[in-house]
Amino acid sequence: MPAISKKGLKMPESPIRKLVPYAEDAKKRGVKVFHLNIGQPDIKTPQVALDAVKNNTITTLAYARSEGSEEYRNKLVSYYKKHNVNVTADNIVITTGGSEALIFSIGSITDPGDEIIIPEPFYANYNGFSTASGVTVVPVISKIENNFALPKIEEFEKLITKKTKAILICNPGNPTGYLYSKEEIQKLKEIVLKHDLYLIADEVYREFTYDGLTHTSVLSLEGLDQNAIIIDSVSKRYSMCGARIGCIVSKNKDFIKTAIKFAQTRLSPPTYALIASEAALETPQQYFDDVKEEYVERRNTLIAELSKIDGVKVANPKGAFYCVAQLPVNDADHFAKWLLEDFNLNNETVMVAPASGFYSTEGEGKNQIRMAYVLNKSDLIRSVEILGEALKVYKD
Amino acid sequence: MPAISKKGLKMPESPIRKLVPYAEDAKKRGVKVFHLNIGQPDIKTPQVALDAVKNNTITTLAYARSEGSEEYRNKLVSYYKKHNVNVTADNIVITTGGSEALIFSIGSITDPGDEIIIPEPFYANYNGFSTASGVTVVPVISKIENNFALPKIEEFEKLITKKTKAILICNPGNPTGYLYSKEEIQKLKEIVLKHDLYLIADEVYREFTYDGLTHTSVLSLEGLDQNAIIIDSVSKRYSMCGARIGCIVSKNKDFIKTAIKFAQTRLSPPTYALIASEAALETPQQYFDDVKEEYVERRNTLIAELSKIDGVKVANPKGAFYCVAQLPVNDADHFAKWLLEDFNLNNETVMVAPASGFYSTEGEGKNQIRMAYVLNKSDLIRSVEILGEALKVYKD
Repeated sequence: MPAISKKGLKMPESPIRKLVPYAEDAKKRGVKVFHLNIGQPDIKTPQVALDAVKNNTITTLAYARSEGSEEYRNKLVSYYKKHNVNVTADNIVITTGGSEALIFSIGSITDPGDEIIIPEPFYANYNGFSTASGVTVVPVISKIENNFALPKIEEFEKLITKKTKAILICNPGNPTGYLYSKEEIQKLKEIVLKHDLYLIADEVYREFTYDGLTHTSVLSLEGLDQNAIIIDSVSKRYSMCGARIGCIVSKNKDFIKTAIKFAQTRLSPPTYALIASEAALETPQQYFDDVKEEYVERRNTLIAELSKIDGVKVANPKGAFYCVAQLPVNDADHFAKWLLEDFNLNNETVMVAPASGFYSTEGEGKNQIRMAYVLNKSDLIRSVEILGEALKVYKD
Repeated sequence: MPAISKKGLKMPESPIRKLVPYAEDAKKRGVKVFHLNIGQPDIKTPQVALDAVKNNTITTLAYARSEGSEEYRNKLVSYYKKHNVNVTADNIVITTGGSEALIFSIGSITDPGDEIIIPEPFYANYNGFSTASGVTVVPVISKIENNFALPKIEEFEKLITKKTKAILICNPGNPTGYLYSKEEIQKLKEIVLKHDLYLIADEVYREFTYDGLTHTSVLSLEGLDQNAIIIDSVSKRYSMCGARIGCIVSKNKDFIKTAIKFAQTRLSPPTYALIASEAALETPQQYFDDVKEEYVERRNTLIAELSKIDGVKVANPKGAFYCVAQLPVNDADHFAKWLLEDFNLNNETVMVAPASGFYSTEGEGKNQIRMAYVLNKSDLIRSVEILGEALKVYKD
């Protein structure tokens, strides 16, 4: 029998999705499952985007241009301008989701054996993309006690080797909800310039910042033109996770030229989704105001409810729609599975993502979970009630 | 300035797309360009697929299941049954186009430095996918004089090393239009079993076989369950290139399990395109009969017209919608560019794909081009007329 590759064997299971079969079994037994495990919001997609697809006049569903049409990229230029990012259409490559933006970026700047430094806990799929490219993730740990703030620059410096090609951040952060300050981005700028590294910023949650705080893009800082790469996506901004449209933004011409070669090889981003994404740029401001208000309420509700449970510690998220909570358990992987397999409160239970999959340091985050506050307030209150009752009876 | 990866520098330019800027310049000068360079048919997408998207009732455009829904995969099981391929839903992973099916397959079975043997000329993007995975393409040459038939098995055996992980074929072939006989697939079966290799068959042109010949799938042969991998796509079958939906089919459970880990990492195939693809399975047989008749006429026209030009040699395609033609020029790359930059016949010219990009052996195919017969008969006749006049005045 022919063998599986070493890389394939090393590919991680998704901490967000690996428990799905257990959730499905629970549903088959008649148990309602509240999904806090995945960043799939219940928020409606903007009508203007939905309508554009419904009213499309396509008769032959043809390839789109590999890097995206001039027209769409020009519209994105105006979008970024509003967010203090001044770029041209040539600085943008349209991708199939933020996922592909990461794959093309990693492929363009790393070879097998190279290293990328990522503050941990980090978005779990960074592990998968890195493994697929033969790249080693070097974690620099951030702590729940510190609200998952940027680790000290000295901690980064200690980890930089000849193999280090980039520092990758997610801002605002998934899974932490941490929003980096301008000063923190400034510090990262200094270190990447000093060591000639790329600074990749996954900014897909740009719009989701709370408490009057604002987002600082890596491309809003001067002097980072050759080093900064933005990863972007329409998934969260317009609640269009299923579109699979994202983009890479960078002023580094050699990098963009290389990313386009990857884009040409896979031919085209999905055409219907491009129609939705281009139309979504016409979404009225009121939509974003309403969504933000909703997320702030949800966050406040979730944090308040979690704080009532003995032994639960939670970082206060300032952006995105996730939080990491520390539970009074030894093994959150086991607990999350147990919630689906062996527990219910009046035939209802919750699905959470064990945080261990968001760390690459073995043993870290074992007693933590990630919760996505993508459900309405009353579902969130009920979810935390279930969690609280579960913790009362759970034995490690 | 941070560096581009070795891999990124090695990524090939697409022979199908690299001349696009020259075509755009020609259009700006008012020259009409007939596109024979890309497999983008002018054929209409089935109405049932277009309607399904127009009538969708989505309000939140959510992620789809990473490997595709149970329902869609079950429908595909019925589709494959009609083509003598007996599989279950568990044998299928839905991908973002045939492109991603290839990326996941190569990633699941090869590590950097490994080798894949491919009869050449081959679909140019196999080079790109292999380079992106750090895999070396080992070509085994097939000849225009021989209509690009499968090279002798001894030629394959000579090339097999410890690093060889798979043989990859495209059947019917892009760019050659060659359709492998059952005996040829049988020979490939023997060699992959003998050497414990995977046999990857890109069968996206399955329906496009002519002159009463039929397609033999690698999964229709007994005894290949652990070795055979089908790469598939809706792009050509339903003229839905812009959907970006494909799949992997294999009975090798370890392989499928690994491919699913790659699929989970990128989260989801595009949701709108899934609606179109699932609906497309209801396309009436008449559609395929009409399309096939159209392609046979186009092929006959193209081959007949090309044969009238002095010094042009052309392989007779039995499937797909491409042919490779040998021209009386020394450098078809230069000729193809010249056609766009410096030539026109009453303000019309043609765009073709230089065949060199479909070879990985340096210097092979230098006087060949690939033409896609994706235009209507009168446009094809005019295109060949332009080509003939161009050859009369072209100087290498």
